[in-house]
Amino acid sequence: MSSWNKIMECVPNFSEGRDLGKIEKIIEPFRARQGVKLLDYSNDEDHNRLVVTVVGEPEALKAALLEAVGQAVALIDLNLHSGQHPRMGAVDVIPFIPIKGCTMDEAIALSKEVGEQIATLYQVPVFLYEKSATAPHRENLAAVRKGEFEGMAEKIKLAEWQPDFGPAERHPTAGTVAVGARMPLVAYNVNLGTADLNIASDIARKIRFIGGGLRYCKAMGVELKERGIVQVSINMTDYTRTALYRAFELVKIEARRYGVPVVGSEIIGLVPMEALIDTASFYLGLENFSMNQVLEARIME
Amino acid sequence: MSSWNKIMECVPNFSEGRDLGKIEKIIEPFRARQGVKLLDYSNDEDHNRLVVTVVGEPEALKAALLEAVGQAVALIDLNLHSGQHPRMGAVDVIPFIPIKGCTMDEAIALSKEVGEQIATLYQVPVFLYEKSATAPHRENLAAVRKGEFEGMAEKIKLAEWQPDFGPAERHPTAGTVAVGARMPLVAYNVNLGTADLNIASDIARKIRFIGGGLRYCKAMGVELKERGIVQVSINMTDYTRTALYRAFELVKIEARRYGVPVVGSEIIGLVPMEALIDTASFYLGLENFSMNQVLEARIME
Repeated sequence: MSSWNKIMECVPNFSEGRDLGKIEKIIEPFRARQGVKLLDYSNDEDHNRLVVTVVGEPEALKAALLEAVGQAVALIDLNLHSGQHPRMGAVDVIPFIPIKGCTMDEAIALSKEVGEQIATLYQVPVFLYEKSATAPHRENLAAVRKGEFEGMAEKIKLAEWQPDFGPAERHPTAGTVAVGARMPLVAYNVNLGTADLNIASDIARKIRFIGGGLRYCKAMGVELKERGIVQVSINMTDYTRTALYRAFELVKIEARRYGVPVVGSEIIGLVPMEALIDTASFYLGLENFSMNQVLEARIME
Repeated sequence: MSSWNKIMECVPNFSEGRDLGKIEKIIEPFRARQGVKLLDYSNDEDHNRLVVTVVGEPEALKAALLEAVGQAVALIDLNLHSGQHPRMGAVDVIPFIPIKGCTMDEAIALSKEVGEQIATLYQVPVFLYEKSATAPHRENLAAVRKGEFEGMAEKIKLAEWQPDFGPAERHPTAGTVAVGARMPLVAYNVNLGTADLNIASDIARKIRFIGGGLRYCKAMGVELKERGIVQVSINMTDYTRTALYRAFELVKIEARRYGVPVVGSEIIGLVPMEALIDTASFYLGLENFSMNQVLEARIME
């Protein structure tokens, strides 16, 4: 238990969501391996994409990941790939997320080591993105990936899109990959007691960063047709700076002017305990509370 | 990390709060030991008592604990002991608390094994208490300990106070010990914006179990003289049944009739993450939330 001093998370996305045999080969390096724990994986046939969630000690995680990348490069041919999700490589994106006992700087350093190794071992060009980006225009994954596998044949030759590692030439079958470091994302939705999508969209626009709202908050309105309600669908990009409860309370305040009640909320996928403990601490008005008082935090120390 | 399939907590109380050399010898068996992690210990000179918090795999924890009990029996003479805290033995009480991957029944079974071993190895009589008690009148530690070390010389000869393990005779220097299983306790205080102790005491009486209040809630009014306020000092004896937020909200409601505001609250010592995550879930109105979505819970699985 106390043997892992540092825990890094990694959520690599692979461009194979249909062939279960190939999927198993890509996941295999994360299984039953000292210092690595496979938390989850899900493959989507429509997206034709595999998303893996794994945690581990940085060195062990790096070794397992490089093996999985090798499998994906050998097994996936992007020339034959189609799916709803945009993609530019057999391994499309590899984010590292510091979880415990390690800093963002360490996650950035790890992403650069992994990027360099991918280029060296497999001749796949690597773009550093998010916190690891070497220029502001490369921070946003969507900007890096624009044009996808097909467009990258020419895009990678432009001066502003030279890869950070590897040849300035798309790998013929595996394309290119984005590697970087980021904070944990929390997917958090607030449900409104109305069927009017305009209200959810309007509130989303007001609470999100680009609309003048909270710094680490992305949001959009979404219809839940089967329930006859709408929701403000939120991506919290740094819950340590923009707390979950602050987004929730802002949605409540904005909903009030429409006379619309907040009927609940939901967390999609995984959430770090601190995001919820911070929320409990706010509502209880806890004084002098420290995460060191949380039994599980102490056990994991 | 994933090597501990089961985590049991133990909070043994030893009757030595002053001699640091003896304290170190009692704690030593919990240090640097495979399968055991010493989370905390605190010795109080006025109480003349040492409280240790340790977690571990059940078998490893048992072995370490039996060693520590051996040290305490060898080092502490209750005939020479004085302090503010009531006590009946060199090792006064040993509660086992199931934390992860183990049930209350397993904690009860472990407490009985440990009790039997203590009697066999050290000839110290053992009372099973709380969930491990063999009769209702033995559940409450205060009832078992009544009369303390001095009174136990005669009490242990009464038919209703025969020990569960070991001779019906007080150990000449180490007295007797209570061993049992219980839920984690959460020490939780709610601060009121008044200096009137009567108000805190009155609210405490209303929210606690014995006053007709919440099933797993003990409470009393306490004065915080240096701050000029009072608090409702609460012991939550099963946060999985009586949620923290329910006690907090009840105090707020009762305070309202006095026109007194709740100015904050505090958690003393350790708290299981679930107690706070449950609270966050309540205030956010989370739908379909599962502890399996908490990253740290998955890592510890």
